[in-house]
Amino acid sequence: MKRKDFNMTSLKLLKEKAPLVICITNDVVKNFTANGLVALGASPAMSEFPADLEDLLKYAGGLLINIGTLTDENWKLYQAALKIAEKYNVPAVLDPVACGAGEYRKKVADDLINNYKLAAIRGNAGEIASLVGIDVASKGVDSAGVDNIDEIALAANEKFNIPIVVTGEVDAIAVNGEVVTIHNGSAMMPKVIGTGCLLGAVVASFIGLEKGQELKSLETAMLVYNIAGEIAEKRPNGHLPGTFKAEFINALYEITDEDVKEFKRVK
Amino acid sequence: MKRKDFNMTSLKLLKEKAPLVICITNDVVKNFTANGLVALGASPAMSEFPADLEDLLKYAGGLLINIGTLTDENWKLYQAALKIAEKYNVPAVLDPVACGAGEYRKKVADDLINNYKLAAIRGNAGEIASLVGIDVASKGVDSAGVDNIDEIALAANEKFNIPIVVTGEVDAIAVNGEVVTIHNGSAMMPKVIGTGCLLGAVVASFIGLEKGQELKSLETAMLVYNIAGEIAEKRPNGHLPGTFKAEFINALYEITDEDVKEFKRVK
Amino acid sequence: MKRKDFNMTSLKLLKEKAPLVICITNDVVKNFTANGLVALGASPAMSEFPADLEDLLKYAGGLLINIGTLTDENWKLYQAALKIAEKYNVPAVLDPVACGAGEYRKKVADDLINNYKLAAIRGNAGEIASLVGIDVASKGVDSAGVDNIDEIALAANEKFNIPIVVTGEVDAIAVNGEVVTIHNGSAMMPKVIGTGCLLGAVVASFIGLEKGQELKSLETAMLVYNIAGEIAEKRPNGHLPGTFKAEFINALYEITDEDVKEFKRVK
Repeated sequence: MKRKDFNMTSLKLLKEKAPLVICITNDVVKNFTANGLVALGASPAMSEFPADLEDLLKYAGGLLINIGTLTDENWKLYQAALKIAEKYNVPAVLDPVACGAGEYRKKVADDLINNYKLAAIRGNAGEIASLVGIDVASKGVDSAGVDNIDEIALAANEKFNIPIVVTGEVDAIAVNGEVVTIHNGSAMMPKVIGTGCLLGAVVASFIGLEKGQELKSLETAMLVYNIAGEIAEKRPNGHLPGTFKAEFINALYEITDEDVKEFKRVK
Repeated sequence: MKRKDFNMTSLKLLKEKAPLVICITNDVVKNFTANGLVALGASPAMSEFPADLEDLLKYAGGLLINIGTLTDENWKLYQAALKIAEKYNVPAVLDPVACGAGEYRKKVADDLINNYKLAAIRGNAGEIASLVGIDVASKGVDSAGVDNIDEIALAANEKFNIPIVVTGEVDAIAVNGEVVTIHNGSAMMPKVIGTGCLLGAVVASFIGLEKGQELKSLETAMLVYNIAGEIAEKRPNGHLPGTFKAEFINALYEITDEDVKEFKRVK
Repeated sequence: MKRKDFNMTSLKLLKEKAPLVICITNDVVKNFTANGLVALGASPAMSEFPADLEDLLKYAGGLLINIGTLTDENWKLYQAALKIAEKYNVPAVLDPVACGAGEYRKKVADDLINNYKLAAIRGNAGEIASLVGIDVASKGVDSAGVDNIDEIALAANEKFNIPIVVTGEVDAIAVNGEVVTIHNGSAMMPKVIGTGCLLGAVVASFIGLEKGQELKSLETAMLVYNIAGEIAEKRPNGHLPGTFKAEFINALYEITDEDVKEFKRVK
């Protein structure tokens, strides 16, 4: 793919602003998500109650809604949080976990997309494809390598008019009809639970850094994240998931804009 | 103990089938459980709502019910999940955490055992003993070394007519009146929270691999798990719990059927 | 500050008693909290239901209430747990997470402090200052270096007549109008989510070891914890948060009373 070379939002900017990012996410990944954001330089806070969200969102730079552990009660919480976020102009990112795996998850994802204001949606190919009605083999919360990932991203971007991040072996970002693919990453990332979920929180940390520059911010977010994965895999025993998990947090802590420039791969 | 030598269910079979294992487990160990199953080769998913369980269980190879963080609401969830699992013929494993520590936990465990279909129960000596009315010193969620672990396993197997896994310094598996003891393992395992809970999920991953071969499958599960513990302890700083935790995930990822054959200990 | 040199409660005593510590804490840090207490030698159990708390608290040596993931439902749970703890004379520690960040959290913290029996409160400078109405810059759940930490501790101790632990670059403990400052610790501790929350659980493990010796017990708890942080930071790659997290658990497992004597810093 050809596209004009633009300046990326810098990781340095994230560290300077250290945005408060409110994460409503699933119980499996809360700790990993919080540690990942702290390592990167954001300020995570988990909150699960409207009165508390009302207090915290007014100071926030981003909101993540991850539907991993979905219940009717949580559904109401997502709705309440999105309303409060809109009131305070806080950009909200949706991670529609496993929305391709069943009617109930699909219904909730559709509701949040159609009836609330979202700044971005982050999902794997199977999840985003299911939202736009494209048929992709999907099993549980994972999805295998998919060829047309940029088409899926564009189709969702066009349908919902929201920036879309689709992840897989190659990742794609679609904003306002423009699509960028990301060719960095590590095969160890899917071996650690929550690398997708943490990415949703990273997207929520970056998306509000520069208003009107969403494609730029999302590209930086994806490159930082994927290159941190590559750095982690190269460390001693980084090819083993228990070690990779700790080294990935280390890499998110150490990575700089210079690393991103040096290691960025172009197709 | 003497018993005929049989072929074990292979770990390779687990990796080939990569069964979707639905884990309803306590908040303390969800992340460790999910990472452990992924490392081993299963596909974990956490779900906590009947409509969602209805969508997911139809594709599942196993269900784990771990009552670690018990509430009346969760009790209803366990009941609903077990009904759905029975409808789709998904083998369900119960981990009756701390059921020897109080009336409430005992009542819930008894209800699930007596009124729902279970494929196996996994507990420590104190927990399983309390279910059959044998008196064993039990403190909190742990239990000290117990001599008659094979008797406890057999008594529970006879009383409930369900395969039983009892863990301790020595582990015992009782199926259809036959009992096998496992003499592998690491003293570091109880120093990491969730090694017992993850084992319940591992049992749920193996139990449905070969119908009618439950003893075989459970023996493989226990050997794989305990030998992975031994491998982890031998790694640098594996005698320290923070390091052991990561190395145990590494070992679950690397262990092969050949390791099991090589390191299996017989009393 | 001058004060008479007293004998500290020994870490050895904690390991001998291995108190059952019931932790009602936020979902983000449950696993880290439980692993930290096990490493240190206490016996953690997480419980979230009155009937279960009634069964477990009668055997407990401490209770932690951490309001990190606050809801109206959890508020009722904290109240119920504190009533049961009082019935069984179990010392209860409150960690009023982010109570300076909004009205709702402040209201809950005030209610628990004013209407229930507490053995200690553990918070950062911003949190404790907000309870006594002192104005301190506070952002999200963290607070920057604060000069008058001993004054904040004393003011809270005087206002509530409860032992107070205030943490920051320097920590302060105030009991019965006496204040002690702690000058150990590692700058890596705030880089790992839950080091503050785990400390609340450590305080709950130590506070009941020697009745009437709260200042002594709290000083030991704080020194053990902070020196473990220093030990962890000195390990290979201990300056990186993913590695530090595991090494901190390792250090909590290995630290001895001799280490505390050797490494204790005086202002």
